Amino acid sequence: MSTVTEKHGTENRGMGGAAGKSQAAPPGQPEPTYEGDYVLDEPLLLDCGRTLAGVTLHYAVYGRLNAARDNAVLVCHALSGSARVGEWWPELFARGALLNLDVDCVICVNLLGSCYGSTGPGSVDRETGQIFGADFPLVSIRDNVRAQGKLLDSLGIAKLRLVLGGSIGGMQALEWTIVHAQRVERAVIIAVAPLAAMGLALNHVQRQAIQQDPDWAGGHYLPQRPPRRGLALARQIAMLSYKAQPLLDERFGRNPNRNGEDPRGLDDQGGGLIGGRFDIAGYLDHQGERFIDRFDANAYLAISRTMDTWDPMHGCGSPVEAFGAIEARLTLVGISSDWLFPPEAVRQFAETIREAGVRAEYRQMTSDHGHDAFLAEQGELVRLLR
Amino acid sequence: MSTVTEKHGTENRGMGGAAGKSQAAPPGQPEPTYEGDYVLDEPLLLDCGRTLAGVTLHYAVYGRLNAARDNAVLVCHALSGSARVGEWWPELFARGALLNLDVDCVICVNLLGSCYGSTGPGSVDRETGQIFGADFPLVSIRDNVRAQGKLLDSLGIAKLRLVLGGSIGGMQALEWTIVHAQRVERAVIIAVAPLAAMGLALNHVQRQAIQQDPDWAGGHYLPQRPPRRGLALARQIAMLSYKAQPLLDERFGRNPNRNGEDPRGLDDQGGGLIGGRFDIAGYLDHQGERFIDRFDANAYLAISRTMDTWDPMHGCGSPVEAFGAIEARLTLVGISSDWLFPPEAVRQFAETIREAGVRAEYRQMTSDHGHDAFLAEQGELVRLLR
Repeated sequence: MSTVTEKHGTENRGMGGAAGKSQAAPPGQPEPTYEGDYVLDEPLLLDCGRTLAGVTLHYAVYGRLNAARDNAVLVCHALSGSARVGEWWPELFARGALLNLDVDCVICVNLLGSCYGSTGPGSVDRETGQIFGADFPLVSIRDNVRAQGKLLDSLGIAKLRLVLGGSIGGMQALEWTIVHAQRVERAVIIAVAPLAAMGLALNHVQRQAIQQDPDWAGGHYLPQRPPRRGLALARQIAMLSYKAQPLLDERFGRNPNRNGEDPRGLDDQGGGLIGGRFDIAGYLDHQGERFIDRFDANAYLAISRTMDTWDPMHGCGSPVEAFGAIEARLTLVGISSDWLFPPEAVRQFAETIREAGVRAEYRQMTSDHGHDAFLAEQGELVRLLR
Repeated sequence: MSTVTEKHGTENRGMGGAAGKSQAAPPGQPEPTYEGDYVLDEPLLLDCGRTLAGVTLHYAVYGRLNAARDNAVLVCHALSGSARVGEWWPELFARGALLNLDVDCVICVNLLGSCYGSTGPGSVDRETGQIFGADFPLVSIRDNVRAQGKLLDSLGIAKLRLVLGGSIGGMQALEWTIVHAQRVERAVIIAVAPLAAMGLALNHVQRQAIQQDPDWAGGHYLPQRPPRRGLALARQIAMLSYKAQPLLDERFGRNPNRNGEDPRGLDDQGGGLIGGRFDIAGYLDHQGERFIDRFDANAYLAISRTMDTWDPMHGCGSPVEAFGAIEARLTLVGISSDWLFPPEAVRQFAETIREAGVRAEYRQMTSDHGHDAFLAEQGELVRLLR
């Protein structure tokens, strides 16, 4: 067994895995041509009724806008992703894949609520002069998409050739075709539908894990003492919903942890209530550790609620009322082994949208990677969509 | 909406839902003819290498042993169950169902590690005079079954007409046919196989939830200050693996919590990081609250590790080596919507056992209740097995 395989550090990418720090892009990862902030000049009136002033959107641009400004593609990131789509979706930029930087200008905007540059719980509330913390307002997907529209206005981009995203990124992509109906030609919406009861439940228990950590301190924790254990546990729970059982069986099965622990209690760690771990447990612990180094607990809470509340059919009497305005051509993608957003739910969602007279095709990606497949098997995704 | 349906208290039974206190049995629930303790006269040498002295098994008896003592049936309970099988599996005793107290003498033994009477983490360690707490040893399913065998010896029961159980109860039932091969005529093993990676992962995150609660205090918490929040969260996570998605969608969907909270942040609770819950979240919180009133955190850890480590094929070179000694006729039951122990895993497990020349049939219960179906749809289970 090589040193590399003895550690739990060789697993493939997770949910929009993004690095927070600037560094030279590995081979195959495009570099942004621009990365910066856009500050809305007016306060954003949110769906929850509150107002957010001084809204900053952090965004990255890959490639260049042409003179007609009609070559823009918007990529929307998932829960823990960043604006640097080149880092977490590099294979979409490969030669012959979906995005061609000789032609396309690819833009990705960090979600509000995130910890990767846009206004979030770690930002200063202009009204109080204090960091928002738990007082950060509930921002909807629609709020995000409205703000993103203003950013694109400022760049002089009237139309998007394509908007695409997976998971909560797909929520934004579809919402773009509703809110900015005349500005989108095509949308690709991957592995998503409004969260069903199980998805809402999973988000709830993940938030509980964070809020129960005493270091969360009611949401007003000190930057030097964040609720690390609670956030790590939330991530571990989430990982279970991102992965499919056969893949976990193949990779980890019932093996003891690769560092030599004995889950049957025969090792020095004794046979008490806590003991040696199985390999899957060592993997989860490692994933939790990795995550707390790159993500913020309040940002996790904020975006998880953004995700929960997305339901374009809420309050609508019919599919036409919800989706009738859409002009774009839609492709919805389900992943065969996705447990969080089962492919059947995505297929039915596409059907509901079609009932509004919208061109919405459904394609299914065959993968044993579960929900994560849109990040873990990018080549397959490209083949399906090309 | 009636008062009854406004509360989250009307859901059906959970995993071996057992009351800790004596009370008149509701109609349809048989009463034990005897309930008491058996103390092993010799220390129990455990699979983990440690020894447990003064082992107490708490057990309940329904009906009466006949003169030949050949009418005994052993029922094995699930994770959070108790010896009072009449409380959590009453429909198996209905007229024409599986258990007939005019003929059968039904015995149920509380698991070691539990908080319902058998020796567990809350018991006093004879060696130290202190409560075990986190020092309670890892007890295997086989250890339990060996101890149960001694109890039946003491009752003069040489043979069991039937041994049956679901989930961790099924682990015990199968183990009985291996360890006490000549003493069992028939075994019914419901919704179980050795835990696969996802099951091990779920148990790991549940244990993390408990251990991260500061009130857990390294496993040596005070009885008056147990880690309630951590245990409640563990239960919530477990509930997700016991239930099937379509059922949750049907019952809860995307409804706001029935107490009137607004998850979209339009109510008085504001639109911050914490806000109104969806109905499924209210349900889970309620389930967590109910559970901490009846179960102990260290007992949960102990039995969860017992469950993790069960794998009768561990260390065996072939099915024959693992199962070849079995003389009983086995029925393994898979539940169509079970996510924790997928029916396909149970079916394959039955096939592996058959490879050892054992009579092991597989039957599948069609239910949308998920893993919980063996408790939630007892009538269906009876029909399948009768």
